[in-house]
Amino acid sequence: MRDSTLSFLKAPLKDIVGGYKLDVPDCPVKLNQNENPYDWPASLKQAVFERVRDLAWNRYPPFVPAQFVAQVARYIGVDSQQVLVGNGSNELMYATFACVLEPGKKLVLTQPTFTLYALLGKLFGAQVVDVPLDSDLRFDVAGLEKAACDAALVVIASPNNPTGSVIDPTDLEHLVASNSALFVVDEAYFDFHGESALELTRTYRNVVVLRTFSKAFATAGLRFGLMVGHADAIPFFATAKLPYNVNIFTMAAVEVAMEHAVTLKGRLEEIKRERERVLRVLRANSAIKAFPSRANFVLFETDRPARKIWHSMVKRGVLIRDVSGYPRLGRALRVSIGRPEENDAFLKALEFALVEVPAEDQP
Amino acid sequence: MRDSTLSFLKAPLKDIVGGYKLDVPDCPVKLNQNENPYDWPASLKQAVFERVRDLAWNRYPPFVPAQFVAQVARYIGVDSQQVLVGNGSNELMYATFACVLEPGKKLVLTQPTFTLYALLGKLFGAQVVDVPLDSDLRFDVAGLEKAACDAALVVIASPNNPTGSVIDPTDLEHLVASNSALFVVDEAYFDFHGESALELTRTYRNVVVLRTFSKAFATAGLRFGLMVGHADAIPFFATAKLPYNVNIFTMAAVEVAMEHAVTLKGRLEEIKRERERVLRVLRANSAIKAFPSRANFVLFETDRPARKIWHSMVKRGVLIRDVSGYPRLGRALRVSIGRPEENDAFLKALEFALVEVPAEDQP
Repeated sequence: MRDSTLSFLKAPLKDIVGGYKLDVPDCPVKLNQNENPYDWPASLKQAVFERVRDLAWNRYPPFVPAQFVAQVARYIGVDSQQVLVGNGSNELMYATFACVLEPGKKLVLTQPTFTLYALLGKLFGAQVVDVPLDSDLRFDVAGLEKAACDAALVVIASPNNPTGSVIDPTDLEHLVASNSALFVVDEAYFDFHGESALELTRTYRNVVVLRTFSKAFATAGLRFGLMVGHADAIPFFATAKLPYNVNIFTMAAVEVAMEHAVTLKGRLEEIKRERERVLRVLRANSAIKAFPSRANFVLFETDRPARKIWHSMVKRGVLIRDVSGYPRLGRALRVSIGRPEENDAFLKALEFALVEVPAEDQP
Repeated sequence: MRDSTLSFLKAPLKDIVGGYKLDVPDCPVKLNQNENPYDWPASLKQAVFERVRDLAWNRYPPFVPAQFVAQVARYIGVDSQQVLVGNGSNELMYATFACVLEPGKKLVLTQPTFTLYALLGKLFGAQVVDVPLDSDLRFDVAGLEKAACDAALVVIASPNNPTGSVIDPTDLEHLVASNSALFVVDEAYFDFHGESALELTRTYRNVVVLRTFSKAFATAGLRFGLMVGHADAIPFFATAKLPYNVNIFTMAAVEVAMEHAVTLKGRLEEIKRERERVLRVLRANSAIKAFPSRANFVLFETDRPARKIWHSMVKRGVLIRDVSGYPRLGRALRVSIGRPEENDAFLKALEFALVEVPAEDQP
């Protein structure tokens, strides 16, 4: 008997298949993935090669890379027992979801937010409950409080992707303290914001913080993220995470990155200044509504169809993200902050697009 | 209210926490992880550095690394649509389990086998059903047939770890053809064996094959594995796998590895010859029972307590794996095949251990 039904697949998978994808036309100006626009200097790449050259590539990385985890913990400013490292922070989110979610459990998300949360929640059979951001795209804390009371897991990205919204630390602590759900605080954009929920992980066992080196440290190509949680909870999350998940090259690169943090992060102030400049220029145009951001991207709406604006800009060699498919963002686009000349190219291409895409074409 | 109960954790997690661990004392002769004993030549490491030097480390890898997947597929000899790549084959196993298992589903394992399968099955809430190997550590095909009929997932490692057992291709096809469960065939040790279930993936949608570059290609430190399945099933498994899971360094290294496959795999024949030599020496000792193996390791039993033998050998600087905690393997140890001089050191240390550990100490 040939199985023609793929009946071994879990039911929810059929609803989410292919649900997370990315359309990436080749453009000279790439502002669609919130990457750091500055590559590593050649000297630091060389420093990584020199460190890796003498390692045994045929050997597995340490089962628990204790020394490496200790270095990361020291850099972040927490205890080693509070840290797990991963092949990007998404891997640690996946493991966390696996520890908490199963059919019958509730996952609370703010909306709009990063697509992957809902997709993974459904994969694990959870019921996904959305708490919409308010009309200014701020977190609805009362709504979160109401939804969290019978939830197993609440994910809060702060700064939130794709909106740039941040949660007030007092509100967050109140939520964590008054609920038994696990709170995952995704701080992928922490370095552009500066405020963190890290302190909560010393007190509360039901909160974890995710960080990534992809953005501020410009290591998106190398994949490195980490999780900080209460020392009593970490062994459980560790059990759901595969061993050897961070390879020897990435570990060496992260070591070099931490040792040269000043060099690699030196551009962050410029990126933040550029973010404010881009915001000012966008806000000077009455056809555009730009939202405040504490991340390395800006969300904006125009009075034209977002997809057509996106296409027009791609034609001019500028790739941004069309996020108009997200809940509540029917007219919105997201632009990552690049180098000053890339941001200029973006602003110019947007100006052209607003001329090219007729206003009467509104949906 | 501080949550002192970690009540957000799924129930099964409490049974498996810390369930997969590895005790790794520092020994000059390391034969405990079935690694390839030969590191990459310096010239090939340099070739990888040169390839990576000019890549943008600040950019994410391609969302779907189509060109890379095509190269891998061509190397393996299947269609691109049949291949997923991962941060080690374990990551792809994890994603596969997530696609199939949930509470109420049955996972069939042969026992003894790789510890991680049962642990992940329980994490996903599945009921784990063990089908023991027979007294010669061969697969019990009739037992598998009986257990598979109402299962969602069957995992067969062939060659099996830690026993080295292989499944007969006709038996495997019969099982796949007559059941609607998904069969995961873990071929981590394929290159030391030569027989594969790959052809089945062209016909049957309910079989996937896992391969790794860690063993034969000596890339355990870099983490690379792949999955081959039917083109109709792969998009579902892809949905449960995170994007950007293989980093740019590992992709470059795998490209170099495939281009220099003859160099890197040239040692396989020697490893297989050494395996047979080690087997012959072990079998010449009446205190030892050594099992046939088609992998790069050998399983053997002695008439002494395995833990004491292991300790005695560690003292002499030889690290092998004590697998006496596995079902049916109360007296067994596993040794990876290393370089000839390492295998000699193993044989000598074992001889000493059999003198040192008294026979009257039998459990």
